[in-house]
Amino acid sequence: MRTLKLDLGEKSYPIYIGQDLLSQPELLTQHISGKQVMIVTNTTVAPLYLDQVKLLLSEYTVAEVVLPDGEQYKTLDTVNLIFSALLETRFDRSCTLIALGGGVIGDMTGFAAASYQRGVNFIQIPTTLLSQVDSSVGGKTGVNHVLGKNMIGAFYQPKCVVIDVDTLDTLDNRQYSAGMAEVIKYGLLGNTHFLNYLQTNIHGLMSRDKALTIEAVYQSCEDKANIVAEDELEAGKRALLNLGHTFGHAIENTLGYGMYLHGEAISVGMLMAAKLSQLEDYLSSDQVAQVQDLLEKANLPISIAGKISASDFMAAMSVDKKVIDGNIRLVLLKELGDAFICDDYQDQLLNQVINEFCQ
Amino acid sequence: MRTLKLDLGEKSYPIYIGQDLLSQPELLTQHISGKQVMIVTNTTVAPLYLDQVKLLLSEYTVAEVVLPDGEQYKTLDTVNLIFSALLETRFDRSCTLIALGGGVIGDMTGFAAASYQRGVNFIQIPTTLLSQVDSSVGGKTGVNHVLGKNMIGAFYQPKCVVIDVDTLDTLDNRQYSAGMAEVIKYGLLGNTHFLNYLQTNIHGLMSRDKALTIEAVYQSCEDKANIVAEDELEAGKRALLNLGHTFGHAIENTLGYGMYLHGEAISVGMLMAAKLSQLEDYLSSDQVAQVQDLLEKANLPISIAGKISASDFMAAMSVDKKVIDGNIRLVLLKELGDAFICDDYQDQLLNQVINEFCQ
Repeated sequence: MRTLKLDLGEKSYPIYIGQDLLSQPELLTQHISGKQVMIVTNTTVAPLYLDQVKLLLSEYTVAEVVLPDGEQYKTLDTVNLIFSALLETRFDRSCTLIALGGGVIGDMTGFAAASYQRGVNFIQIPTTLLSQVDSSVGGKTGVNHVLGKNMIGAFYQPKCVVIDVDTLDTLDNRQYSAGMAEVIKYGLLGNTHFLNYLQTNIHGLMSRDKALTIEAVYQSCEDKANIVAEDELEAGKRALLNLGHTFGHAIENTLGYGMYLHGEAISVGMLMAAKLSQLEDYLSSDQVAQVQDLLEKANLPISIAGKISASDFMAAMSVDKKVIDGNIRLVLLKELGDAFICDDYQDQLLNQVINEFCQ
Repeated sequence: MRTLKLDLGEKSYPIYIGQDLLSQPELLTQHISGKQVMIVTNTTVAPLYLDQVKLLLSEYTVAEVVLPDGEQYKTLDTVNLIFSALLETRFDRSCTLIALGGGVIGDMTGFAAASYQRGVNFIQIPTTLLSQVDSSVGGKTGVNHVLGKNMIGAFYQPKCVVIDVDTLDTLDNRQYSAGMAEVIKYGLLGNTHFLNYLQTNIHGLMSRDKALTIEAVYQSCEDKANIVAEDELEAGKRALLNLGHTFGHAIENTLGYGMYLHGEAISVGMLMAAKLSQLEDYLSSDQVAQVQDLLEKANLPISIAGKISASDFMAAMSVDKKVIDGNIRLVLLKELGDAFICDDYQDQLLNQVINEFCQ
């Protein structure tokens, strides 16, 4: 097992990464202060891992809430089901919430923990590659609003994150690839060494070699942790983590949640960012081809498989929360492995990229 | 105008208290950093003060959301109306929310500000006596759940609070008395000098003498500010502010919101706490009579005007959030002006008090 410490002062917490971690109760119990534990999971994950996790918590009052599975349920109404479960079981402010599932479960459980009685403890057990390398690190929690993605939420840190890569055994190939999109993102945005590692080992990773996976998850979490430690509230550098996300969110918002997985939309979004970086004379066409090649080898989409008009796409981008007083900030690439925040790109080049990808 | 500085490190903010403050734009504008301002108010307050506040903000993009008035609307669904208004007007994370109204508006607007895009700025303009001395100080925000009061929320501090006591001119007598219950609470829980001031000046205060009111509001805010500065997240001393509240919330939860105003329920709750303090041999019967006399002179209720069974009352108390792992903590009085947190009172004496007040 490897342990990564996220350094956030009083809010610091460890991330445990390894195999067979869901048989080790002390990883959880040392971070639980009260007697009441609520496990929040969904209908897909519950049959796979809920009993296993409950076995670790025999000394606690344990309750569970099993939510429907899917991004379309990442809403205030679903979070309210968590509040209802907590109140029906009379859980008080000393309780601990455990998120057992992917990013949607983690985001909603974190927001519920931030808001229940104005804040209770929580722990993350992410079971998808995407949530292991992304949403379990950094304390972003929240839900979607019908008018925009992740528009409601809180910055709220867990007490610990337990990443058992064995849970990836039950993840289907499409979800695994979607997670790999975020792994590739860390290489592209700030770590040339890691990008080379991924280019070298992409076949081994896609055949789910455990040692390679642990290394890739660890490196992704470390890269994100370093950025988050510098900029917890996303005032500056943390925005680099949005590489591909402003484009990707526009795809998700326009096509509707469900057509693309989040990581798939981000894959297309990263390629759009790379293309704009090329048009702005930062990247060569060969470098854009390298990005595309790596995404394709991870079985990720490189185009929008659905009809979106360029004007709808622009409208969706401008409601994204990375907009400051009306200017759309984008994350572009100076080099492969070196992203930067840009708001002085040429509008016509952005339009050219959008027109190329929209049909 | 008097200015009280709430000392919370980076989250410090000023509270301005005086007359004719809603004609002074700089009180607001010096605390607004972006260009977009959303005023959140309700159908009662909007016709009285909305235009006046908008006049102060001529240099900004100003939008408004006018919510229905009443504690029964203090829900996630109503907060969602604020999110919808923010998204429909494309307000970004540099925007500022202004709460213009009583405690319900302040609590919901604060929670909306804490949660919109994971946190935007907000400013409080409390227009009721209750919200001026209570909910505008200390950063508690949130909404009710059908299973319990204030169960969902966040600790989130405003950038400033503007208390214009002239807004009390439009407050009806019942609401004014309800606010006075919280004023009296500060005297009872920790300030003998202020309690004497209130006993001496209660008639002048009830006839709404402005100078007396400013002094009472200032002293209440200062007392609360001192306690909050010591204990922002309610780990210890801040719980003293709940004097009368565990009883009061049980009354509100059992009778249903609407029968009693919050301050009225707290009035009865404080008298119940005083009676239990007498049974536990802390207060004399004369001291309890003094408490009752002051509440009566403020035209506040001293008994439960409605049918509640003792067992329903107990059940409602035990779901209150001041419960830690199952023990009901109460705030009792060692002396008038000296409250303490108690969980080793005799159950039978608590039952005696509850039976005395429940019919």
